[in-house]
Amino acid sequence: MGVNLPRKELFDVPEGVIYLDGNSLGVLPKGAAERAQKTITEEWGGQLIKAWNTAGWMALPQLVGDRIGELIGAPAGSVATGDTLSIKVYQALAAAIKMRPDRKVILSDNGNFPSDLYMAEGLIKTLDQGYELRAPAPEDVAEAITEEVAVVMLTQVDYRSGRMHDMNAITKRAHEVGAVMIWDLAHSAGALQVDMAGSNAEFAVGCTYKYLNGGPGAPAFIYVRPDIVDNIEPALSGWLGHDVPFAMELNYRPASATERMRVGTPPILQLGVLQEALKAWDGVDMGDLRAASQRLSDLFIKEVEARCPMLTLASPRDANTRGSQVSFAFEHGYAAMQAIIDRGVIGDFRAPNIMRFGFTPLYLDDADIVAAAKIIEDVMTNEHWRAEKYNVRSRVT
Amino acid sequence: MGVNLPRKELFDVPEGVIYLDGNSLGVLPKGAAERAQKTITEEWGGQLIKAWNTAGWMALPQLVGDRIGELIGAPAGSVATGDTLSIKVYQALAAAIKMRPDRKVILSDNGNFPSDLYMAEGLIKTLDQGYELRAPAPEDVAEAITEEVAVVMLTQVDYRSGRMHDMNAITKRAHEVGAVMIWDLAHSAGALQVDMAGSNAEFAVGCTYKYLNGGPGAPAFIYVRPDIVDNIEPALSGWLGHDVPFAMELNYRPASATERMRVGTPPILQLGVLQEALKAWDGVDMGDLRAASQRLSDLFIKEVEARCPMLTLASPRDANTRGSQVSFAFEHGYAAMQAIIDRGVIGDFRAPNIMRFGFTPLYLDDADIVAAAKIIEDVMTNEHWRAEKYNVRSRVT
Repeated sequence: MGVNLPRKELFDVPEGVIYLDGNSLGVLPKGAAERAQKTITEEWGGQLIKAWNTAGWMALPQLVGDRIGELIGAPAGSVATGDTLSIKVYQALAAAIKMRPDRKVILSDNGNFPSDLYMAEGLIKTLDQGYELRAPAPEDVAEAITEEVAVVMLTQVDYRSGRMHDMNAITKRAHEVGAVMIWDLAHSAGALQVDMAGSNAEFAVGCTYKYLNGGPGAPAFIYVRPDIVDNIEPALSGWLGHDVPFAMELNYRPASATERMRVGTPPILQLGVLQEALKAWDGVDMGDLRAASQRLSDLFIKEVEARCPMLTLASPRDANTRGSQVSFAFEHGYAAMQAIIDRGVIGDFRAPNIMRFGFTPLYLDDADIVAAAKIIEDVMTNEHWRAEKYNVRSRVT
Repeated sequence: MGVNLPRKELFDVPEGVIYLDGNSLGVLPKGAAERAQKTITEEWGGQLIKAWNTAGWMALPQLVGDRIGELIGAPAGSVATGDTLSIKVYQALAAAIKMRPDRKVILSDNGNFPSDLYMAEGLIKTLDQGYELRAPAPEDVAEAITEEVAVVMLTQVDYRSGRMHDMNAITKRAHEVGAVMIWDLAHSAGALQVDMAGSNAEFAVGCTYKYLNGGPGAPAFIYVRPDIVDNIEPALSGWLGHDVPFAMELNYRPASATERMRVGTPPILQLGVLQEALKAWDGVDMGDLRAASQRLSDLFIKEVEARCPMLTLASPRDANTRGSQVSFAFEHGYAAMQAIIDRGVIGDFRAPNIMRFGFTPLYLDDADIVAAAKIIEDVMTNEHWRAEKYNVRSRVT
């Protein structure tokens, strides 16, 4: 048994806000500001260059990687942190295709987050060796895994619908045909029970600013299966992935294990805040978390459907095939979401018509869900969203 | 005429420290801690996901890029920020080689920072198309620029010796033989008068945690010459380099100008601190800065040579061919530097035998230089560095 959920006391959420967007940017953990002060004033200001040793900056990426590893079922040393998720996708993909040199197909799905597909496109163009990216509908992926496929690259939870791939079944299918498996855990880490080791997938990547509450632009992570990592020649072979960075050798020699997937100088300020944020996971049982997530999501669907007939559920109804978010389709979804946000219930909108709500059991309880549903009902039924101000698009939604 | 230098009042340097390592990690600007607090507490904590618009996070990378552009003679819109310097090297190199598809040689030098060479190695292995990396001695580069060369990739100021390449002459030579030019400005931005537009080089990359005082792991930057950028197909084609990131299109379409060289979600916390740090450059005339840098460096050489005959100058004696650092070779350089640091004069050591001192006119004056030289003299002549504790190597030096 883990600690009781939620743990609202560990977070600062503004008064009057019900935050259903932790799947996009997690809330502020209480220790974050103090940690940033310490990093800046005591460490950078006080210890200057020496802080790489004296304040433990050199060790920080690995410590944070190991902590994330615990949350996704990955052994110590198998997760490296740094860069952005897009960069980590590129690293995984570049390594994976080299493992199947006789195959030219990269298989993803059209519900994958666009940046993952874009990074694949960029790699394919850069290589210019006849690779092909296939992106069928998510439900057609399993049967598209054929012996032509070098790499299957999927985001476990669809960023729009919340639809969840069966990680073990898809990985097994990929391996049956000899393909390499990459999972993007952007909407999984801190949201689901993930068992990377048990899945047997070769690679996983993810970000830390969503369910892990690392803050805006927090560093990403990459997992490489321990039995294959020693054969990986990193495409992005930066000095901090070198076996002995400060020997300043002229030639690259990869560091041991997943450390080789590090690239450049780590973002210490953001890593420190992330490390602080991860403390909120101490003692949390991921089974409890998943149960709470499903309870909150089911309750939200029930409440919203009962109150808002104009909204169409765009997520799987079965909680076992859904991540920790619920989406509704609505023609005027952009305007409606702006009006709802104006009332203190924060979700977000994804083109073309998806109103998206995320559920974060660390800082949400049943009462929040019911209160949110009532506000959504008021906005939808009284058509507050028709106000002109809600129909002017800003760049980010 | 610019503001008077130094501007010590803008920085927090610990009492009793003479910091000659701003070429590795710049000191703490006074506004940094407060800015981080604002980003964390008011923006992340108070505005949550909305802060991407309301706090201006979306615009931050470009604003910071434009400010850096002013310091390196690059027009607005031609500099993008984010990621690490190694990633930016990869982006520039991957783009540059596509511009000369009939050539297979990448030319650098063996005084380049190892990570630049490692990234080239990684790209070459990943492409597996017969590319070759050549790295002659820095003084032999000019004559190694032949018509076989696709790309010349150099760091302007040698990280060990401080030796400076003639940017305009080398660029001109590269263009004469039809090669593409990439400059790494790691030790140039904020240290020298740089005129990217005037140089006519196609690409430049750099970091911001050295002379620009952005803090540990501050984001990097990349410059692309405006007349060629529209033809660049980025290898690292992430969603924030897409023309319309939030349209969530399935296919990549590059954003206009250098914005296309952005990749993933920007590190907002570090970018905010960097933006704050860059305020120290307001009103600074880069000619004044270079003059002060040369005066400080010349004074240091004169003082140290007069006091420490056991140290051998490892930097060019002519200030016009030297960056903003001075290096001395000494067999026991590692131990000697530790002993000097223990006395409050902070430089650093680079394998195999280089004691390195950087000069940052924003926060150093002549009196600092003379005081530092006296302390170095005491450590060297009394052989304090022979103490056993100084001869045990830690990982980072």
